[in-house]
Order: sequence, then C-alpha cells, then structure tokens
Amino acid sequence: MTDYTQILVEKADGIATITLNRPEKMNAYTRTMGAEIMAAMDDIDADDGVRAVIFTGSGDRAFCAGADLTPEGGGHVFSDPNEVDDLSDERVRDGGGMLTLRLFESKKPLISACNGVAVGVGATMQLAMDIRLASDNARYGFVFARRGIVPEAASSWFLPRLVGISQALEWCYSGRVFDAEEAKSGGLIRSIHTQGGLMQAAREIGREIADNTSAVSVAMTRAMMWRLMNTDHPMEAHKIDSRAIYRLSRGEDAKEGIASFLEKRNPVYPAKVSEDMPDFYPWWDERPYS
Amino acid sequence: MTDYTQILVEKADGIATITLNRPEKMNAYTRTMGAEIMAAMDDIDADDGVRAVIFTGSGDRAFCAGADLTPEGGGHVFSDPNEVDDLSDERVRDGGGMLTLRLFESKKPLISACNGVAVGVGATMQLAMDIRLASDNARYGFVFARRGIVPEAASSWFLPRLVGISQALEWCYSGRVFDAEEAKSGGLIRSIHTQGGLMQAAREIGREIADNTSAVSVAMTRAMMWRLMNTDHPMEAHKIDSRAIYRLSRGEDAKEGIASFLEKRNPVYPAKVSEDMPDFYPWWDERPYS
Amino acid sequence: MTDYTQILVEKADGIATITLNRPEKMNAYTRTMGAEIMAAMDDIDADDGVRAVIFTGSGDRAFCAGADLTPEGGGHVFSDPNEVDDLSDERVRDGGGMLTLRLFESKKPLISACNGVAVGVGATMQLAMDIRLASDNARYGFVFARRGIVPEAASSWFLPRLVGISQALEWCYSGRVFDAEEAKSGGLIRSIHTQGGLMQAAREIGREIADNTSAVSVAMTRAMMWRLMNTDHPMEAHKIDSRAIYRLSRGEDAKEGIASFLEKRNPVYPAKVSEDMPDFYPWWDERPYS
Repeated sequence: MTDYTQILVEKADGIATITLNRPEKMNAYTRTMGAEIMAAMDDIDADDGVRAVIFTGSGDRAFCAGADLTPEGGGHVFSDPNEVDDLSDERVRDGGGMLTLRLFESKKPLISACNGVAVGVGATMQLAMDIRLASDNARYGFVFARRGIVPEAASSWFLPRLVGISQALEWCYSGRVFDAEEAKSGGLIRSIHTQGGLMQAAREIGREIADNTSAVSVAMTRAMMWRLMNTDHPMEAHKIDSRAIYRLSRGEDAKEGIASFLEKRNPVYPAKVSEDMPDFYPWWDERPYS
Repeated sequence: MTDYTQILVEKADGIATITLNRPEKMNAYTRTMGAEIMAAMDDIDADDGVRAVIFTGSGDRAFCAGADLTPEGGGHVFSDPNEVDDLSDERVRDGGGMLTLRLFESKKPLISACNGVAVGVGATMQLAMDIRLASDNARYGFVFARRGIVPEAASSWFLPRLVGISQALEWCYSGRVFDAEEAKSGGLIRSIHTQGGLMQAAREIGREIADNTSAVSVAMTRAMMWRLMNTDHPMEAHKIDSRAIYRLSRGEDAKEGIASFLEKRNPVYPAKVSEDMPDFYPWWDERPYS
Repeated sequence: MTDYTQILVEKADGIATITLNRPEKMNAYTRTMGAEIMAAMDDIDADDGVRAVIFTGSGDRAFCAGADLTPEGGGHVFSDPNEVDDLSDERVRDGGGMLTLRLFESKKPLISACNGVAVGVGATMQLAMDIRLASDNARYGFVFARRGIVPEAASSWFLPRLVGISQALEWCYSGRVFDAEEAKSGGLIRSIHTQGGLMQAAREIGREIADNTSAVSVAMTRAMMWRLMNTDHPMEAHKIDSRAIYRLSRGEDAKEGIASFLEKRNPVYPAKVSEDMPDFYPWWDERPYS
C-alpha cells in the first residue's frame, strides 16, 4: 500500500485522498497508475476508517492529461506484439474501463477534485465518481474523435447519464477542450472553486458524510442508486430497498440513529462495511467481460 | 371514501386534492395514511370526473415530516413480532414503496404542492408524482443515512431519473435537509411559490389539463412515458405508440379534437378512462414482488 | 436523389442540409416528406463526403407545423380503408416513428436548426436528432392530448431522455405551445439564435466536426452513445469500447490523429465510414416491429 509509484494515498480524519502523481507528465495515465488506483480502492474498501475518497492531481496545472502514449505509459494501445483474434479475449480490455468498472463497485463515496487539465481518460475516469468539483483553471476534453479512436472507460454509459445524450454527443463529436464554466453549465461538475479552495470544498463534502451518517447506509445507498436506476421498473428497486429497510431497521445503526437524534448529539454508528453489510448483499452476480 | 381519518380528499372542477392531515404531527406518515392514499387513488382512477390530482399537507409548516416512528405510526419498522426468514415474503415490503408503486400506476396526472417540511417518506413519496411545486418555506431531506437505514419508496429508481445520479447521491449521502431554492436548482421541483400562491399554481396546471385535453390521451401518455422511457430501444416505444395512434385516431376524441380546433371552440371529449382505453391497454404484465 | 418534391437536399463543404420544403403549408409533414427524408438519409449515410447533417424548414415562419391531416398529407391517420385486426401488422406503424427510428440509425451527426413553428411530428422528429438549436421565433408543441391522440415518433422514449420525465409529462399533458426560451430552460434545445444567425450557428457545429475529427470515430461514437447508454450495466459499454479501442488504435486514423497532433497541423483522416467501420460493427441485431 505504501509502495505506490505513480499515485499518493493519504488518509486523514476518515477521508482518503488519492493523488495522481506524475506532475512532470501532467499526471498522464499509465497502466501502472491504473493498477495502483485499483489496488488503493481495494485497500480503501476494506478499511472501515475511510468514509469518503477524494481524487485529485499533483500540482496546480493538471488533474490528468490523458493516456501516456509513450512506450513507458502503454496508454490505450495494446502493447502485446501477438495480435488477438477473439475480441472477447481479456487482453482486448480497455484499461480505462477496467478502472471505471472498479470505481463502480466502490463501497465508499468518490469525490473528484479536478485541479486542472483533464482530457481523455483524465476526463472519463471522473465519470464513474459520484460528485465532481473543479478548480477555475480546469479544462476538460473528450478528445477521442480527434485521435481516431472512440470514448473509452465505459463513458458511453456514464456520460449521457450525467449530462444527457445531446451534451454528451456534442462534446464527443467535436473533441474540443472546454473550460470549467462550460463543464458546470453542461452538468458535468457541481461547483467551481479557486485552486486554493478546491480541496477544502471536497473535504467538507467528505466531512459531512463522515460526521453524520452510517457507513453501511452509505455503502448500500451507493450500490442501490448506481444499479437500481438502470432497471426497467421501480419494482426492482422496491425489492431491494424493502429488504434493506427490513434488515437495517433492526440493526445497531438504526438504533443509534434514533437515539442520537432524540438525544440531540452526534451519532456514533457501530456497524462496519467490512463485516455488517446485510446478508443479501451483494444481490447481483458479477458481470463477465467475455 | 368519506371516512378517511388521516387524509382529506376534496374534488372540485375536475381536480382532486389529497391533503395529508395530521397537522399536530406535521403530517407524519403512518401505515394508515398510506392505505388511505392508496384507497383514494383507487377511487380517483375510477372517477371520470377527476382529471388531475394535487397532493399537499395540512397547515403551512409541513407537507409530511417522514415516517411516524411511534407505535401509533408503524413507520418503516416492521412491527410483526414474528421474524420473517424469506426476504421475498410480502410482509417485508416497504410501505413507502407500496405507495409509490401505486402512484406509478395512476391514470391521472399527479401534482405535488409541497407546502413545507418534507423529509424521509415525505420527500420520497413525491418522487413518483409527475410535477412538483413547492412553497418558499419548503424543506427536503433524504435523511436515511442519518438514521442507519437506506432510501426507500423505490427512490433509488425514481430520484436519479429526476435529478441525475450525482445530485441524488449527494443528497442521500449527506442526509442533510435543504431548502426550496436548492431543490429547484437541483431539478427536484419546477417552481417555488408563496405559501398563499402554491395551491393556486398547482390548480392552474390541473385546469390547463382538464380544460383542453382528452382524458384517455392523458392516461395513455402517462403510462407510455413512465414505462417506455426505460426500454432499451426506441422500437419498444414505437410498437406501443403505433398501436395507440392507430386506435385513438379512429376514436371519438380525435374527431372532437379536430372539430373543436377547426371550429375554434373548447373541446368536449366524450371518451372515458373507465371505459374507453384502447383494447391493448394495459400492454404490460403486473410485476410481482417475490 | 435530385427528384425530391417536398424536401431540398444541399451538400456543401462536408455538410448536408435537409430543408423541409412545403412553405405554403408551413412545411407540414406528409408520408411523402417522411419517405423523402429517409431516402436522403440513406444517400447521406453512404456518402463519405458528408460529415454532418442540418435539418431546417423553408421560410422564416415554420420548421414543420405537424402532420398534414388533409387527404393529400395522410398524416397520422392510417388511410387504408381495410381495417387491420392485428396491431403488430406493419400497416399499423406510425410514420413519424419510422422516421425517428431511421434517424436513430444515422451514421452522421444530426443537427436541428428549428427556424419557427414545430408542433406535433414537427417537434417529435427533432427528438431523435443529436443537437437542437432554435431561432428566437421558434415555437414548440407536443399537442397530441389536445387532438385526442398520444405522443408519437417514439417520443415517449426520446423526450424523457432529453428533458427528464417531469418536463416531458408537463409539456405532453397540457399540449400547449411554448416558446424558445421555455424550450431552452427545459433542456429541449441548447441555444437560441436570431433568424439570420441560426444556420450559421448550426454550420459552425458541423464545421468543427468536419475539420477536426475522424468520420469513423464519430460514426462509432454516435452508435455507442445512443445504444450503450440504455444498457443496465457499464460492462456492456466496456465490451464494445474495448473492442473499438483495440481495433481503431491500430488503424490509419489513429496514426494520423497522433501525427497531426505532434506536427501541429490539421488532420486528414483516411478512413471511410462506407468501408472502414470495425469488423464487429454493427454489434446489434435489427429490432423487429412485430
């Protein structure tokens, strides 16, 4: 956990911060960086001390300038000299998508603090995060059509959900880079901050979660929202939330929630995500690639 | 119909108003209240004189302060002393979800006139309504994570559809109470009114529907929009709206629609929702809980 | 291609403009007009010289005043004197929906330049286009409930995706005509222009695409976004975009994208939509009506 080479992971006061850390390369994404973020997520999901995760980039110029296309980076380009015939082969898998699918499974809230340039996978990895903030010098670009490729990281699934199909297409058709104001008016980010105020704003969101809520409630809420919104009928949500209300309302966190409310004090929820998720969780099967 | 104890139902000029009526308890939700709303919906759906439904709360402080957690209320907490082993047991079902699923089946447009505090199920029951208005003293809270439980009433299906996944998660993660301005900027409500002007604004929306449109057209539109938007391909909508255009364009309401338009007079549509829905309606099977 | 009678098709500088051309009838929609637009789309999809398509109406009053309900037009009303018993019969199919399903399959970006009145199918045909602009005298109306019918052209699938379920229902329940400002605040259009500036603004969007991007990238992006956003899990997008990244990153356009970027010159992408789509395209089966 401490021998990451391209990211920094800091944990303090219940909040983990993952910093993309190749400032001399504008934090360009590599396969190593992707693997390190996924390892950090495994660690964070297992650590009951972490209640929220903030992603940012090192320095004040870039969040992540996209895939490093040099041999060192690996980028999108499949580097195996042996060509693959079967496109369902695991070696075909896009690295950015493996990352966003891992973020999709997160048990902790994910907050993006976009501190500068975010293009290509630097933009699309943020789509799988829950809440997006930016500094006023942030720049976004879904530049794939200008590189002869296509949006990756499952962004054809994520982006229209966040900004609507028309805005998603307009940004991806043109491939142009746009600023934080356009990102906000288009619905990509919730708020714009000074470079100096960005991390504080992200931490305040994390703090409000850490100080007031049940970790099991939040992990369940995350899984329910991202998964059940896609079902074709509200009955599918009703099945899961009925089970969750039934189980959780008999649990220790529900007792503490009511007691702290009545006693007008801050709650101290005993349930742990690592041990106390309800017995029917996860209620889904893993979705295979092939 | 007239012996409701926790709601008031008034019908006037084609508009039914359902008032949550426990003002001494800030209209807190009980199982009885839920059952009465569902009974009122059955009555309203069968009453061709009703063209739109407005929901509001008694008094000027609260729409509904959430589930009444006292023994009198029943609340979310399953009160049967016998524990249920099988979570697909009907007794596990969340009461708020049974209500929103009933609203989902409504044949009449549903308008929420949120006249004050709306937290917990007081907020989530409004998600299944079509159009949401609020008074300037309205307050909303998806407070579940602060109570050790999860969003209920199928709100993991409804809320992201209304406000997007990021806003839905931010409100549910923090569990904090927010005001009407934030509800409007976040997309939860369409407009903010004075306490005195709220019901008038809601009635004007109902009036425009009642005075100008075919009841069968509106009932079909409601079923089509809420159901077909969830399908994975526009062909699924095309199948249903082709059938509907084919049947309805030969009906009496279509003749009256054209005639009144050409004669520049108000229309009087003869078709009734109780009798004249097209032969293929409903085109779906009931979705079971278990 | 040049013997259209109710539309004009112009191609210039990589942009095709389809003008609905019955100005004496406010460009009212007929079955002939629908068939001509579909034929023009077939021609455009096969023409590698066309990079974007703009739709507008002839004159400065109307984009399209809806279905021409006279015998000349055919309109929504199925004109076959022989009634059809089986509603899955192809003759039941709504003409507006056949058009929007054809637009859904487009390989080129579709831009609506709505230059005036757009009601009924004049409004709903635009929902299947990617990007919508309007002149300041534009007026929209989803008037179906005032005519005793229902929204057609698969708009119960398209409209909630663009503007949300609540706004979609409010416009369709009332059936009233509304102006460009309301269309913009409701999310139906991206921007409002003077009558004189409208086409220029639409062309600039087309130009940015034509001058900077790979045609194959854009055609793939269009198919991916409109189709994969509807799947129930991001893995479904990951499967397709992994395959696309794998294939396209080895192609000539990717090489040119990188080369032109490094050489700081405008790109000239060699790949053609007519010949060079990746081998797994299309990855879906045609969806039958019956």
